[in-house]
Amino acid sequence: MKVDGVTYRSVWVDPDDGWSVRIFDQTKLPWTLDILRLTTRDQGAHAIKSMQTRGAPLIGAVAAYALCLALRADASTEAMERDAGLLNATRPTAVNLRWALERMLTRLRNTPPAERVAAAYEEAGRIADEDAAQNEAIGRHGLPLIRQAVRPARRVNVLTHCNAGWLATVDWGTALAPIYMAHDAGIDLHVWVDETRPRNQGAALTAWELGRHGVPHTVVADNAGGHLMQHGEVDLVIVGTDRVTRHGDVANKIGTYLKALAAKDNGVPFWVALPSTTIDWTVADGVADIPIEERGQAEVTDMTGQLADGTIATMRIVSSGSPAANPAFDVTPARLVTGLITERGRCDASAEGLARLFPERA
Amino acid sequence: MKVDGVTYRSVWVDPDDGWSVRIFDQTKLPWTLDILRLTTRDQGAHAIKSMQTRGAPLIGAVAAYALCLALRADASTEAMERDAGLLNATRPTAVNLRWALERMLTRLRNTPPAERVAAAYEEAGRIADEDAAQNEAIGRHGLPLIRQAVRPARRVNVLTHCNAGWLATVDWGTALAPIYMAHDAGIDLHVWVDETRPRNQGAALTAWELGRHGVPHTVVADNAGGHLMQHGEVDLVIVGTDRVTRHGDVANKIGTYLKALAAKDNGVPFWVALPSTTIDWTVADGVADIPIEERGQAEVTDMTGQLADGTIATMRIVSSGSPAANPAFDVTPARLVTGLITERGRCDASAEGLARLFPERA
Repeated sequence: MKVDGVTYRSVWVDPDDGWSVRIFDQTKLPWTLDILRLTTRDQGAHAIKSMQTRGAPLIGAVAAYALCLALRADASTEAMERDAGLLNATRPTAVNLRWALERMLTRLRNTPPAERVAAAYEEAGRIADEDAAQNEAIGRHGLPLIRQAVRPARRVNVLTHCNAGWLATVDWGTALAPIYMAHDAGIDLHVWVDETRPRNQGAALTAWELGRHGVPHTVVADNAGGHLMQHGEVDLVIVGTDRVTRHGDVANKIGTYLKALAAKDNGVPFWVALPSTTIDWTVADGVADIPIEERGQAEVTDMTGQLADGTIATMRIVSSGSPAANPAFDVTPARLVTGLITERGRCDASAEGLARLFPERA
Repeated sequence: MKVDGVTYRSVWVDPDDGWSVRIFDQTKLPWTLDILRLTTRDQGAHAIKSMQTRGAPLIGAVAAYALCLALRADASTEAMERDAGLLNATRPTAVNLRWALERMLTRLRNTPPAERVAAAYEEAGRIADEDAAQNEAIGRHGLPLIRQAVRPARRVNVLTHCNAGWLATVDWGTALAPIYMAHDAGIDLHVWVDETRPRNQGAALTAWELGRHGVPHTVVADNAGGHLMQHGEVDLVIVGTDRVTRHGDVANKIGTYLKALAAKDNGVPFWVALPSTTIDWTVADGVADIPIEERGQAEVTDMTGQLADGTIATMRIVSSGSPAANPAFDVTPARLVTGLITERGRCDASAEGLARLFPERA
């Protein structure tokens, strides 16, 4: 996608040296467009853990490239297995991380150590290319949902939570892919952007992405969505996800479940967009069995932003001495999900729906 | 209630001069305990409009005192009616404001102008005293709900949204009154405090109040409550309200509706605490007929807090150029409310329930 007219992906191999890995430092957005150069396994792990790079599909691709960097240092089987395990442990909720590393290991275990680095870059490149292609397909399959919501003399209002845009994937985004396509197709569209506390990925990243692309949008506090739906101001909700169970339960950024409840209560369609790499076929009951990452309390008690003089600063926003808790994701039961938008098409959020689209896994 | 061992109410007449009105500047909390001295109608109106003073019951009492200040300048009937109207227009959602001013006018219209100032202070004092007494009664009627939730070897977890503590009333608070009484009674109690974006009344005021009183609590992002309820971490929800319709619909801080939906979905009791002055007997359908205040977008795009050096600063937290919307309240339909806690006792959130407790109004 484009930033000020320049086309980027969210992760790429530096064309000058042919091996170092480039990502945006998403903790600096929307204030600074800072491009990082990763050269070691530990830099890759840190980038994922500290959320310099984030978004379920994207951290899969970055982890694959981080394994390439690890293999440049030590391509032995022992080191490779250890390093993949270490990268897999950086974030617990998104399944794409595990999926990407398993795919890398499957490809590399039977490759002689001397050939592993080249094979790894090739495979990581394929993972990235496939992600971009899958998201474009998600956009195509999601576009009709927006088109159906068009009413004469009235814009279509879509609400989204967190950032499931191109910054969360290699390109296009998941939830935002249909939105970009609808906007580009000339549909009069407006996006309600949940700010998405505590890390404000909506206010910082989604608003930035949409703004750079020229998509009309309004940021709201996470608290506002139910009220907007009660008053007919939301035609549909589209969110991304970090893990979907084989029964269609959806783990996504904390607060998603509340929006799904409000959508159900107000008859607003609630769609979840994902590449099939986000489906965890090993888990059925999401509320019981998806591990939910508990992140540091400073993400709740402190906030980063831009002072009037342009300085980026961090300040405390919670009464001193009061502790905070920070569960980073929640699980929306399948019964609240209107449907899933995947690269193969749309389906019900159910075992049957997923089995129809992915018969080879059912 | 007490702050560092000193007993305060949230509004009082200065004992030194006998007429100026004292309030905390709640926009400075939790960083600074700043006591304002109001001497004119316009200072009173500004204090309410700018939320230096806030909370549905409290702004009723402050408006009554502001009318006293107005009468000191001009006690004519014409001025009195105009000034009451002006004060009533400062905030549109809370019904207590209108109630308090109507009560003042009823008392003062038949009082000769020369006697109005003294009569007004007397009536405002009664409004304040009655509010404190009502909230104490709310605490007594709410306490059994917490007591019933006690389980062996397990703390009782109460979730609350926004600030309905003593800072929102003249004393005790509404939602927090039962919590203070339970804590003082030795019940092992813990409060989940929704930070309550965009103005962070939970993180700033409720956490401050509870911390100063020694009540164990944890601040969470507004997004977290549904997840906590899904995992059995919330035994009951108690919130305050700005207006309850005669059918039991509840207007309260934006986001309350989302918590009520989650409580319903997880079988968690959802209680609303209020003095009967918060009931609007003229309105039946809250979603259709309660005006929802739309506040400035800077409350969403900018955040105030404390820098590491102790300075209080305001910074932008939303991508530059992105607009924001800021509905300040939402309406929770009565069907989602387990019951109401009033100064007369508890009742169903329904026309029948309210009529039983308040037969003289039904």
